Amino acid sequence: MPKRIITISRQYGSGGREVGERVAELLGYAYYDKELIKRLAQLGDIDIDLVRSGGEGLMSKLSSLFMHAGSEGRDEDSLPLPDRLFLTQARCIKQIAEEGPCVIIGHNADYILQERDDVFNVFIHADWEPRKQRVMARNNLTEQEAEARIKKIDRNRASFYEQYTERRWGRAANYDLSCSSSYFGIEKLAELIVHIVRTSLSE
Amino acid sequence: MPKRIITISRQYGSGGREVGERVAELLGYAYYDKELIKRLAQLGDIDIDLVRSGGEGLMSKLSSLFMHAGSEGRDEDSLPLPDRLFLTQARCIKQIAEEGPCVIIGHNADYILQERDDVFNVFIHADWEPRKQRVMARNNLTEQEAEARIKKIDRNRASFYEQYTERRWGRAANYDLSCSSSYFGIEKLAELIVHIVRTSLSE
Repeated sequence: MPKRIITISRQYGSGGREVGERVAELLGYAYYDKELIKRLAQLGDIDIDLVRSGGEGLMSKLSSLFMHAGSEGRDEDSLPLPDRLFLTQARCIKQIAEEGPCVIIGHNADYILQERDDVFNVFIHADWEPRKQRVMARNNLTEQEAEARIKKIDRNRASFYEQYTERRWGRAANYDLSCSSSYFGIEKLAELIVHIVRTSLSE
Repeated sequence: MPKRIITISRQYGSGGREVGERVAELLGYAYYDKELIKRLAQLGDIDIDLVRSGGEGLMSKLSSLFMHAGSEGRDEDSLPLPDRLFLTQARCIKQIAEEGPCVIIGHNADYILQERDDVFNVFIHADWEPRKQRVMARNNLTEQEAEARIKKIDRNRASFYEQYTERRWGRAANYDLSCSSSYFGIEKLAELIVHIVRTSLSE
């Protein structure tokens, strides 16, 4: 079955996002990361400015938004915020997948799209040292700050994933392919994924 | 760095052993699975007939052997049997890796060889249904028996791995590459691994 949808889950600081961007570029697929969050916000009728910085702080930003929205926000739906967020996210990702070939970064897309047979699920990880170096350089952090940030963000990702999927985050068996970006490097890893997806397209 | 040593860890019933055999054949590398156990037995001066059936029952067979060997076996080394087994296994695997290019199935080889930089570590898993079908056909078992066997053997593998490595078995980040044999199929997966290893050899 041709794989038109690629989901990329990743350890923080592994370069997984860069790999996903490159894969989308090489295949000419749409790419969803912060863009996904923008659409999520639109679907959920959430002020886009508050979530524009996207990514890692999404939960706390949305939490804060709903906490300050008074009874209006809560009346819309009686579910707790994380559940609403997950459902909105799931609706948004399903819609994106319907629209055409794409690469989706994070957001539990591997689980949300499990009913489709045109999805290729990838997990990207890396050795501790290069993750730390990448996070230090990218966020202008000390070694200690980078370590704390990596641990915190991975813990958040694992916790959100495990709460909604009943799967263990980072377990190889959840994904079709898991790779170390430390072994392959960003470009070679993107090429490997593209090679696998192209093989599926020509079958 | 050229990868001359390939370790393959695998879920029971995933076809990981077959993938490893095929990889060894395609690359012309030595292959160690039951052969490894034979050498382990030789190194450890253990009756080879008792471990010839090898693989999954090794622990209980060796347990039984040492339990019935009286004080003689225990006097040789004051460590508990599982520790002795692990150390013997580690010595054996390190020696095998020194001898030349090879594929090593299971036996915590990924952990044991972590100091070398010419090792490529693979984990192979599969969907539940094909694993069950494979185990039913191979061992002539009912569905229920196959399910129980898979769960028991994976639990044993995880427990042995986690006891000696302080890593979680089946966690993607332990390996350079983790793949689903349900997605790729045995032959294509072997070809993918060979492609990656050959790329490393030509660098």
